[in-house]
Amino acid sequence: MLTFYFAQSTCALASLIALEESGLAYEARMISFKDNEQRSPEYLKINPKGRVPALVTDRGIVTETPAILAYIAQTVPAARLAPLDDSFEFARLQAFNSYLCSTVHVNHAHKRRGSRWADDPAAHEAMQAKVPQTMTENFELIEETMLAGPWVMGEQYSVADPYLFTMTGWLRGDGVDPMRFAKATAHYARMMDRPAVQRALTIEKG
Amino acid sequence: MLTFYFAQSTCALASLIALEESGLAYEARMISFKDNEQRSPEYLKINPKGRVPALVTDRGIVTETPAILAYIAQTVPAARLAPLDDSFEFARLQAFNSYLCSTVHVNHAHKRRGSRWADDPAAHEAMQAKVPQTMTENFELIEETMLAGPWVMGEQYSVADPYLFTMTGWLRGDGVDPMRFAKATAHYARMMDRPAVQRALTIEKG
Ligand SMILES: N[C@@H](CCC(=O)N[C@@H](CS)C(=O)NCC(=O)O)C(=O)O
Ligand SMILES: N[C@@H](CCC(=O)N[C@@H](CS)C(=O)NCC(=O)O)C(=O)O
Repeated sequence: MLTFYFAQSTCALASLIALEESGLAYEARMISFKDNEQRSPEYLKINPKGRVPALVTDRGIVTETPAILAYIAQTVPAARLAPLDDSFEFARLQAFNSYLCSTVHVNHAHKRRGSRWADDPAAHEAMQAKVPQTMTENFELIEETMLAGPWVMGEQYSVADPYLFTMTGWLRGDGVDPMRFAKATAHYARMMDRPAVQRALTIEKG
Repeated sequence: MLTFYFAQSTCALASLIALEESGLAYEARMISFKDNEQRSPEYLKINPKGRVPALVTDRGIVTETPAILAYIAQTVPAARLAPLDDSFEFARLQAFNSYLCSTVHVNHAHKRRGSRWADDPAAHEAMQAKVPQTMTENFELIEETMLAGPWVMGEQYSVADPYLFTMTGWLRGDGVDPMRFAKATAHYARMMDRPAVQRALTIEKG
């Protein structure tokens, strides 16, 4: 049995959707950022990094969105959530997820989590001010060079899709009009039609 | 035939070492950050993100260190650079690499690349000032909760090792005394004894 730790309106949504797509049995446990539960002694035993998502398995705990997504895909090959038999296509999937994780998510985090990288409140303001620009540049690149359509990898749906969906959902809050990005907006709408996405959004509401 | 694009003193060293460990035939091409070659029209055709590393294969181009590392490991299973037959152990490896990519590397980048996240020079100074603290915290967590020893994954060497080696090599320049971290320092020395690491360091010198 798997236990999945998440918080509302976070990158954990990507893994939550992937779990729903996979058909795996799991228990979803919501932690509250408002109460700073991610830094509680109990949660730090699950994930010493003090972040979500975290997936507890019989063999140990997996953290980091790209790792969890690939793990789900490999655990349920029949769900066809990644090109498991083609190392080049798998690398393309991983490159996409790694870009979201290390660049897009990180840029977004400069809006509210500036204290990770500087102590000066004026610096936090300067970081916030640049978020619309960096997110716009990232999504321009995604549209122009990465998003094959209809899904991220092309004809085949994969775990990259819930991850992109999660980031597209952040744009408006980051001061960027999603309608600027025709492909990402169409992708978002296509995702919304999937029952697994609807179930995950319901679970996320708590 | 593979072509590998790198620049000196960058995260590309991790993939360069992995290529040397794998025995794959490849051509190494150095680009110059001093001349801003990563933003030249020619290089942007290779990697539109304007970053290294990039691995050109017969089927297309792979970017992002964790993706390149897993690709090399999957392409040469006989080199045993990743636990390819065990999805949980593979997830552990990926979680480690994703942490280095999205957290440790990103913290390090706030020393010299602050202009990615803010325009105000005072904000860049505030970011630089915090780098010794964030890198220290990251390496404390690595020592306490991740680095099994003698290698990252335990007894079996993997592509996580050149990646950690690369980040440990950044500590001094980031204002952190590596000797604070007994396990990471011992790991670094152990890496230095490997012929593939020595060859990669020679190639990196250009
Ligand atoms: N690289 C990690 C990042 C995880 C992460 O930063 N999660 C955020 C939510 S989107 C978090 O838990 N933040 C809590 C905090 O900073 O206190 C991943 O992709 O899973
Ligand atoms: N997430 C990417 C990051 C690549 C990256 O940021 N590379 C740096 C060198 S360590 C770079 O190319 N910087 C050039 C620039 O910012 O102009 C990866 O892990 O490969």
